[in-house]
Amino acid sequence: MSHNTFGHLFRVTTFGESHGVAIGCVVDGCPPMLPLTAEEIQRDLDRRRPGQSRFTTQRQEPDAVRILSGVMPHPDTGDQVTTGAPIGLLIENTDQRSKDYSDIKDKFRPGHADFTYEAKYGIRDYRGGGRSSARETAMRVAAGAIARKVVSGMTVRGALVQMGPHKIDRDKWDWDEIARNPFFCPDKDMAAFFESYLDGIRKSGSSIGAVIEVVAEGVPAGLGAPIYAKLDGDLAAALMSINAVKGVEIGAGFGAAALTGEENADEMRSSSSDRGNHGPVFTSNHAGGILGGISTGQPIVARFAVKPTSSILSPRKTVDRSGAETDIFTRGRHDPCVGIRAVPVGEAMVACVLADHVLRHRGQVGAS
Amino acid sequence: MSHNTFGHLFRVTTFGESHGVAIGCVVDGCPPMLPLTAEEIQRDLDRRRPGQSRFTTQRQEPDAVRILSGVMPHPDTGDQVTTGAPIGLLIENTDQRSKDYSDIKDKFRPGHADFTYEAKYGIRDYRGGGRSSARETAMRVAAGAIARKVVSGMTVRGALVQMGPHKIDRDKWDWDEIARNPFFCPDKDMAAFFESYLDGIRKSGSSIGAVIEVVAEGVPAGLGAPIYAKLDGDLAAALMSINAVKGVEIGAGFGAAALTGEENADEMRSSSSDRGNHGPVFTSNHAGGILGGISTGQPIVARFAVKPTSSILSPRKTVDRSGAETDIFTRGRHDPCVGIRAVPVGEAMVACVLADHVLRHRGQVGAS
Amino acid sequence: MSHNTFGHLFRVTTFGESHGVAIGCVVDGCPPMLPLTAEEIQRDLDRRRPGQSRFTTQRQEPDAVRILSGVMPHPDTGDQVTTGAPIGLLIENTDQRSKDYSDIKDKFRPGHADFTYEAKYGIRDYRGGGRSSARETAMRVAAGAIARKVVSGMTVRGALVQMGPHKIDRDKWDWDEIARNPFFCPDKDMAAFFESYLDGIRKSGSSIGAVIEVVAEGVPAGLGAPIYAKLDGDLAAALMSINAVKGVEIGAGFGAAALTGEENADEMRSSSSDRGNHGPVFTSNHAGGILGGISTGQPIVARFAVKPTSSILSPRKTVDRSGAETDIFTRGRHDPCVGIRAVPVGEAMVACVLADHVLRHRGQVGAS
Amino acid sequence: MSHNTFGHLFRVTTFGESHGVAIGCVVDGCPPMLPLTAEEIQRDLDRRRPGQSRFTTQRQEPDAVRILSGVMPHPDTGDQVTTGAPIGLLIENTDQRSKDYSDIKDKFRPGHADFTYEAKYGIRDYRGGGRSSARETAMRVAAGAIARKVVSGMTVRGALVQMGPHKIDRDKWDWDEIARNPFFCPDKDMAAFFESYLDGIRKSGSSIGAVIEVVAEGVPAGLGAPIYAKLDGDLAAALMSINAVKGVEIGAGFGAAALTGEENADEMRSSSSDRGNHGPVFTSNHAGGILGGISTGQPIVARFAVKPTSSILSPRKTVDRSGAETDIFTRGRHDPCVGIRAVPVGEAMVACVLADHVLRHRGQVGAS
Repeated sequence: MSHNTFGHLFRVTTFGESHGVAIGCVVDGCPPMLPLTAEEIQRDLDRRRPGQSRFTTQRQEPDAVRILSGVMPHPDTGDQVTTGAPIGLLIENTDQRSKDYSDIKDKFRPGHADFTYEAKYGIRDYRGGGRSSARETAMRVAAGAIARKVVSGMTVRGALVQMGPHKIDRDKWDWDEIARNPFFCPDKDMAAFFESYLDGIRKSGSSIGAVIEVVAEGVPAGLGAPIYAKLDGDLAAALMSINAVKGVEIGAGFGAAALTGEENADEMRSSSSDRGNHGPVFTSNHAGGILGGISTGQPIVARFAVKPTSSILSPRKTVDRSGAETDIFTRGRHDPCVGIRAVPVGEAMVACVLADHVLRHRGQVGAS
Repeated sequence: MSHNTFGHLFRVTTFGESHGVAIGCVVDGCPPMLPLTAEEIQRDLDRRRPGQSRFTTQRQEPDAVRILSGVMPHPDTGDQVTTGAPIGLLIENTDQRSKDYSDIKDKFRPGHADFTYEAKYGIRDYRGGGRSSARETAMRVAAGAIARKVVSGMTVRGALVQMGPHKIDRDKWDWDEIARNPFFCPDKDMAAFFESYLDGIRKSGSSIGAVIEVVAEGVPAGLGAPIYAKLDGDLAAALMSINAVKGVEIGAGFGAAALTGEENADEMRSSSSDRGNHGPVFTSNHAGGILGGISTGQPIVARFAVKPTSSILSPRKTVDRSGAETDIFTRGRHDPCVGIRAVPVGEAMVACVLADHVLRHRGQVGAS
Repeated sequence: MSHNTFGHLFRVTTFGESHGVAIGCVVDGCPPMLPLTAEEIQRDLDRRRPGQSRFTTQRQEPDAVRILSGVMPHPDTGDQVTTGAPIGLLIENTDQRSKDYSDIKDKFRPGHADFTYEAKYGIRDYRGGGRSSARETAMRVAAGAIARKVVSGMTVRGALVQMGPHKIDRDKWDWDEIARNPFFCPDKDMAAFFESYLDGIRKSGSSIGAVIEVVAEGVPAGLGAPIYAKLDGDLAAALMSINAVKGVEIGAGFGAAALTGEENADEMRSSSSDRGNHGPVFTSNHAGGILGGISTGQPIVARFAVKPTSSILSPRKTVDRSGAETDIFTRGRHDPCVGIRAVPVGEAMVACVLADHVLRHRGQVGAS
Repeated sequence: MSHNTFGHLFRVTTFGESHGVAIGCVVDGCPPMLPLTAEEIQRDLDRRRPGQSRFTTQRQEPDAVRILSGVMPHPDTGDQVTTGAPIGLLIENTDQRSKDYSDIKDKFRPGHADFTYEAKYGIRDYRGGGRSSARETAMRVAAGAIARKVVSGMTVRGALVQMGPHKIDRDKWDWDEIARNPFFCPDKDMAAFFESYLDGIRKSGSSIGAVIEVVAEGVPAGLGAPIYAKLDGDLAAALMSINAVKGVEIGAGFGAAALTGEENADEMRSSSSDRGNHGPVFTSNHAGGILGGISTGQPIVARFAVKPTSSILSPRKTVDRSGAETDIFTRGRHDPCVGIRAVPVGEAMVACVLADHVLRHRGQVGAS
């Protein structure tokens, strides 16, 4: 992975700043002949789009994506398909109205990348956070929509499983609930609680962290590769690269530290005849679907922690570019829990990593 | 990162199986003129070496490393220095005596990579776990010793901060304790407790997980790069690639999910005059020294969870290569807590990531 | 280098088809604080642009480039500079009018990539050659304009030195002539000859090959790296990747095969005092400025051979997609000598390779 | 391709200096289950080995290669096969006797990499040329032997087609002659001439250049990828990276510059029934088996020019490390025509590129 590119055979390169002309990406290495339309990508983008509830920023951009290259009508069917050429995607920024950035232009917002970009490059695009804005993740979701085509036999779904100190009840997990609340929460009761909980946080101008879980089902055994292209290693890099993420777990995760070998070992049984000869079944999944960096055929389970939105209404102590001490507070509307919108982003990253590994596996070993 | 290589400008490629002829690595891209001797690498290797206490495997290999290339005596001083050419390192396996592997040859050990290697490649080196053995990490430590030369102004240290459910008392943290107990534990009292605790686990043939924390001090602000070469993203990949690791955290980590924006934001103050003009100081370090994927100048703090050793004495249910159900238990001696030996490995991975980013930063932006 | 990306630290990713919506590229890794405007890129693009004389295709596109990201006004001077973020460039295709492609849709044009794209992907974008069109090289020229900023102390210039069997007289080489004729020919007399020579070829509906030479001056000694990042190896890959190129030479090139060791060795003398302490001078430059893959400080001299345009008016034997034999001839206007427009493309590729190596050298060794 | 690594999915990393402890390489990404023994690799190494005739250096090393990892006996057949793990190869340097290097330690040999290594790194391994020595190519040949296993359906053969100004007669090309003379020359008569011709050069202490042609047959259509992973681009980089190579051509090569479109276009005809449905046949092969960067199914034809050996007996003018002018001449025995030993090296590089592209194609598109 290089600066603005991730993946090896399924490669995604993104560009664009929050308040620049446009954001875009290039998806390179996508296999040919996959049906693909802008509408399909748009559908995924709309799930992540801000301004959909009072719990996400009120920026009202349509985020309309255009496919610039890499597709054409199939000569026989007329359906638009990929050609194997790089797929260029573009979203013009329409909501980048002239604004007063004087407050943040010369001050470093705590918890933001203001100081570090300045320290690294000697210059930073202060307009809406520039490149460090979560707006970049729109292109991840777009790329993820293409990745899903590559791994069409798999199901990659994400859910918010914790907000602040409040965890969902795993016994109440219902994937269908995800689409019924603005939190991507699979626990109906907890979703109801989050509504009032987050309202309180929003009204006080504060923010709160969250934990997201992404589950990939239908992943065949054998994806991933030792030693430095482990499936979990690549997932960790991909998820940690999402804005505001501070931790990544696979399977039992940090909980594994407290387990004994007997508790942690996922025992194996012969698969029942009606499942076909698809290898063994596991009696548990502490491994989160990955052993030795390679998928076991069990669901891949990855979790990541998102810190609270750094933009809050109460003033914080900071310094300005000259080094002088000052205070800053963030005007305008911001997500009280940026973790919510991270759910489709996390799904997209997992889909991209899986797509890459499907192609890599096929390259080294043959069909997966 | 490709299969057996990590890093971009400071690149490490490892090879070798646990019970093969030898293990080795190639460190490519190391700057010239750095003093380097086999003795220095050996010193780091000896910290990780098995057989040093009753809490690590009794494999009694000297693990003597040879430098095969990439160094020569400095024409003026005569001291051995790097030349900029790739540094080949080799450790011959001397303890690979013929053994009875019939038990694991055809059975898949739960929690091990036996099944997944077989699923991927159709063949696996069952002798001591082959490529999936933690023996590979010796070469990481060796490469890390070279990486330390590249980041000679930084201090990279690791500590075991949790074993099983037992966490250390952070108020008692004393780096000097690390070398005084066989657990790399910075809390003297907890180290004493671990002695009897782990003895019990060892005697019962069981095993236990652990959490390791690595701290890098002296890291200048500005290392790392958005978006897919974030310092935390690369650290996550590097640490997750260590055998048995199931989770990685930076700074507040998963704890950040429960924080509010006010709690999480590390405020900034002007640096006092006696520290020179080294940019702002932060009043806290929930960020773990990284914002927007770029170092802040604060200590880098990374934690990772290691699952319990999968090799335990009590039999576990499994299947064999033909798919038939059977039981398996692991003969021989194994680490009751593989997390202990992961401490120097974690340090080495962090040092390698930092070395890579120092070179990358210098490449794109100039001297750090 | 991956499918549609070249370079390591200065990385260029291109996308877009000849008659698609747009062509574009992402330049990643460009250092910050370099002044950059769309006008400067446009200037280089205009040198390559078709439709400028009767010797290049009459496609009359303005090829107006937009910078989508990676730049902003310098906070102090207000001049637009790079920020270190990826630079997205876009040229909308305006001349992609609906056309009758029925002739080439199902037939493979000899000398074109029609058959091979179909063989590889099972589908090809037949509209104007799609991705295999030389139109892609516009983005190389645009990227090259940025690369020139990175290597601002160097001069990278190209010249057409042979058309058909006719070579220029090297004693008459005058760089100033390049801009005075439509062939980028440095020999005034030969340029006059080419005018009538190529007119004849054009009128007969035929085409002809050419040889281009690119010279880079002001390159410091020490760029490049053994063994597989040799400066000449990277130049060879870069130049060979240009459409229709069939050969690449450095310095004496294929002529070196006929030389003796005495003739070929470029002897070295102490640099005269008035040149400063810039290392030795060479009494000749058979090496083309590169020894052991590393620059000597002499001018870098690279040549590449471009085959004749494959689109010609006389019908050629071919087969169609069903395998049936048929004839094909190319309607419309095409460059009678595609080598002419390859001159600025060759310059751009050399500039990009040098920019990449400047950053890589700085990364591993320090300032160049 | 990074410093000492080439290839993407079939990746080769080499290390080691001419007179160091050992040279070695790691072949990463090799598919599992390929039969492989050290004897097979040795066979290819012996073809390149010095000291076999009076026309190659008299260094009498056995160059005995050891396989350190990545293979094991097949559990069923007992035959040694690859496992998918990285294959470590090692050749210990046995002929590195202490020698008087005082002459070249402080002087830069013209035509060698002495000055450029020093300019880049500030230090160079003067012992036998260190890393810049052609000894490194032994590991390429070893890696090539493994690559041949990956492309087992293809035949990759090289021949010396020109020495000094003397070209072979292509009508007399007989592949069987290659093994019958010390020049890998396919023209029996020319081989006889070269014997006396090169003897004269050798006795005078001089050296001479050569041109090598490598032909790959049985390559399916569809290998390679636009735009920056073109098969010819990768071949150009691979061949140009060989020591002393100054030019690379594909198919008609530089000769294509003098051709018209009519002459150059390889027309296509339907394949005759007895060849099966293998796509069209071409009536000529000016393309050298590659169009648009992708293989056509015709033989791949690549040529490269090797400069004369820089080590010659007559003194040359040079400077020393302090910048003072001096003379130098090379003691000891050297190849009068280093191009001869480049033949198996060229074959190996072509085999490695093809192996990489087979895996890459399989990754993106499926089975080739």
